[in-house]
Parts: sequence; structure tokens; C-alpha cells
Amino acid sequence: MEQMVAENGVQKVELLAAINDDHGGVIVEMKESMDSKVFLSLLRASLSHWKLQGKRGVWIKLPIELANLVETAVKEGFWFHHAEPHYLMLVYWIPETANTIPANATHRVRVGAIVLNDKRELLVVQEKSGKFQGTGVWKIPTGVLDEGEDIFAAATREVKEETGIDTEFVEILAFRQSHKSFFEKSDLFFICMLRPLSFGIQKQELEIEAAQWMPFEDYAAQPFAQKHSVFKYINELCLAKIDRSYNGFSPMPMTSFFNDQISYLYLNNQDFNQQNSTVDS
Amino acid sequence: MEQMVAENGVQKVELLAAINDDHGGVIVEMKESMDSKVFLSLLRASLSHWKLQGKRGVWIKLPIELANLVETAVKEGFWFHHAEPHYLMLVYWIPETANTIPANATHRVRVGAIVLNDKRELLVVQEKSGKFQGTGVWKIPTGVLDEGEDIFAAATREVKEETGIDTEFVEILAFRQSHKSFFEKSDLFFICMLRPLSFGIQKQELEIEAAQWMPFEDYAAQPFAQKHSVFKYINELCLAKIDRSYNGFSPMPMTSFFNDQISYLYLNNQDFNQQNSTVDS
Repeated sequence: MEQMVAENGVQKVELLAAINDDHGGVIVEMKESMDSKVFLSLLRASLSHWKLQGKRGVWIKLPIELANLVETAVKEGFWFHHAEPHYLMLVYWIPETANTIPANATHRVRVGAIVLNDKRELLVVQEKSGKFQGTGVWKIPTGVLDEGEDIFAAATREVKEETGIDTEFVEILAFRQSHKSFFEKSDLFFICMLRPLSFGIQKQELEIEAAQWMPFEDYAAQPFAQKHSVFKYINELCLAKIDRSYNGFSPMPMTSFFNDQISYLYLNNQDFNQQNSTVDS
Repeated sequence: MEQMVAENGVQKVELLAAINDDHGGVIVEMKESMDSKVFLSLLRASLSHWKLQGKRGVWIKLPIELANLVETAVKEGFWFHHAEPHYLMLVYWIPETANTIPANATHRVRVGAIVLNDKRELLVVQEKSGKFQGTGVWKIPTGVLDEGEDIFAAATREVKEETGIDTEFVEILAFRQSHKSFFEKSDLFFICMLRPLSFGIQKQELEIEAAQWMPFEDYAAQPFAQKHSVFKYINELCLAKIDRSYNGFSPMPMTSFFNDQISYLYLNNQDFNQQNSTVDS
């Protein structure tokens, strides 16, 4: 909590501790347990204070242990912005004008890994759960990105976890965007090509029923792979890549405009560099 | 609420109304206001019932009007899964084994639109808010995807909204993945090439300070565009594309494996089709 001292030096009002954000708003990160009546009075005093200061958005991050304060905040006009297992982020907009609160995350990101060895064999798995459970279908390793993980890192991690194979990321061959894949959320599925650096399979026990190097033609001959779109495209992309005439997108490190953080730009590196050398020459 | 009749026909227990999900769990969508004590007793009876049935995940969707029930659910062991402005999704895992509850959405998706006319002029805007406000910097139109929106649709929509120009989507030239762009969330920024179908600019009043067709060389000569990575790459991708030797990813409609929904696969169509015609011939 903060003490606010009025100009005449007499009035003292307790406020919620807040830090300023980059957009003229404030962020309150609640940490200690608090009675909801105490919270209500602090919240009202704080909102009046921020209003006088001309603040815009007000964010309150409530750890799940403080779930007793959710109702109070909502009754004062806060709404939900996003939630993670251990906290709920509430938001309020002070100005009369339309709010410019940024949207919540809308997409889950998944990777599928195409790992081909020199014998034209594809690294494939059978999963213990999910839609293909018990069907005998062999599929490429797939998985969901962890928070803050790069696409190329997720692809090599998933292959290592599921099969024990070390790989080097080559490029993204294609990606699919689909909607309402999980409640109202969308899904981006990146089909990646990786080069194997080891060959001895050590399958993961929890999720993987079986893993093997499978002749590409046997994989492609599975009925599901011939009939259905994304699997058919995976086959055709494999073939396109085997024949070395297909360029996907590969990652290039770059620094951010606003800070020193490294992020990756994925682009058609081969065409891009050809272009640049033509220009340079 | 549901009535549960025991096998002897005597005992009746009221339960929360639930529907089964595809993964052995149940989904409760709360709609009408309820006293938290009533909710607690219904929730406890329901959890016992679902446990006996061998159910796995339990989802409770609470509209914001029922924020009074959040604390009760959390005290019974529920945690937050995700939230949108008007609801909070809570989840609980019944089995003794590790939970397989899917992760929340982790990425926001944005588009930037490169629109070049036949006079080698680029469609550019100055924004009224954001980091470039008041700097005089001209930049390409950008924006965030709406819920359930396709990347190509978002690109044409943003250009139309900000400048009034009608466009046809050509392809994605590159994309950048960056982390912690918004609290713990990541950002995928797709740099798209579009072909203009109209030329008379009608700028949007709320967000856009100015919009114009600008000779590409003047745009590229802006100091910020020369120094900083993503902007420098946008310039070089423009040049690569003007010279027609750069292939990006373009969208191809396909049907889902599991239902009839249309989704889009983005791939290097030119390399892919060349490949296919070689195989066919």
C-alpha cells in the first residue's frame, strides 16, 4: 500500500501500490492476502486518485490465492483480460473515450517435425493418447510451444523428447492456421524440416507407444495419409524437399527496434540471399 | 441443474448441468446467477458424481456476472485456465495421474501490409497513437487479427480500414516471432504483400494521422528504416519482391482431417507447383 499526502500536509489516504505502464496506465500486482472490504476501500480511493492523475488503463493482477477479491473488482467495473493457471488479470479503463486495451492472445502454436535420414526413412511415432490412439497410425512428432519458446527450438525439443533423436533445424516448409481449435482460440501449426544428428531411438514412455525410422513410401502409403489434406500435403512437401527444389522459411536472428532482445525473422533465405547477391554484384 | 436418481430409486441429488467433452471430461457452462453456498453444495455433489463416473478434466465457464462464484470454485481446487472480457474458464483434474489439460493460447498475431502500385510507390501511414506517434515516421499499415480471423483476411481488412484502399492478398514474405511482447505473451508478426485494386486514399480518422502513396526510395530513405532490423528487412523484402525473384508463402484452402471446416495452408506455392508438375510430367 502507498500513502498519499495531500498538499496541505494533513490528509492521508492509503492507496494500492501501483507502477506506471508505457501507455499512460498503471499496473497493480496484488501479492498479500487482503480482506475484500479493505480491498474495496483501497481500490475506490486509488481509482479516484488515478482519475485525477489522468491515468488511462488500470491493470490488476490477482494471484489465485486472492480469488476472494475478484468479485469486488468486477463490481467496481473491472473486466477480465486474461488468465493463467496461477493468476487472473483484470482491467479497467478510466477515460471517457473508447478503450485501447490490447487484445488477449488468440493463438496456440504447434510444430510438426519432418526428420528424414539418408536412407529416405522418416522418423515416426505412435501416440498413447489423442485422436490417433490405438489406430496403429504412424505420424510425425508434434507438440505445443512452451511459453516464450521459439518455433525452431520447440521442433528440436519435441523430437528429442519423443524419440531421443538429436536434430538440427532446417526450415519451415508450410504452416496451417485453423480456428476454434480450442474453445474460441485458433491454432497455428508449423510443419518443420529437421536434419537428424543421431540415429538411435530412445522413445519417451509417457506419451509415445512406439517410434521408428520408417521408409518414406511406407509412411505415405498409410490410408489416412493419402486421403486427408494436411497429411497429404506433408507427404508432398517431403517429396518436394527430397528433390531439393522447394524453399521454405528459415530463421534469421535480429534485434528488436525498441530493446536489445533477440527475435527471429523467418523468411525464404535462399531467394533472399540470391536477390541480395544479385544486387551487390 | 440436473437430477440424479440412485439405483434404488429413492435418493435424489441435484447436480450442475454438464456436457461431455471429447477427452473424457465435462464442461459446465454457468448461466444463471446463483448464491455461492448453493453453488458450493452443487459443485461438491457433482464432483463426487463425476469421480464415480471416471471423468477426467472438469471445465467451468463463469460469465463475469457470476464473479461471486470464483472464490468457491478455487477453494474446491479449481484453477484458472483462460479468460476473455466476459468470462473466466476454470478447470479441475480428477484422476491421480498428471493432468493433460491443454495449454492456453500463447501468441497474439499481427499483420503488416506491403502494398506497392505500378509507379513503385508504397502505401504508408502515420499513426495517431503508439510508439511512432508524433515522430513523422511513415510506416506500412499494421494491425492485430480479430478472433477467428485468417491472416490474409486481416491484412486486406487493415489496409481497407486505415486507408480505404481495396487490395488482393498475394503472399506472406516473412514473419517474426518475438516474446514477452505483452505480459508473458508472444507475438507473431506476418509481413504480407498485397496488390492494390483501388488507388484513392480515404484515411481512417480515429487511428490514422495521415496516409499516402510514397515513392519507395523515399520510404526506404527514412533514418529509422535504414538502422533498425525489422524495418530494414521490410525494405529488402520489398526490393526482392519488386524484382520478382522472391517467393513467399501463399494460402491454399484445405479441409480439416476431423471435420468439414475450411482452413488455410500457407506454403511456397511456386516451388510446390513446379515440383508437382515435374513429378506429373
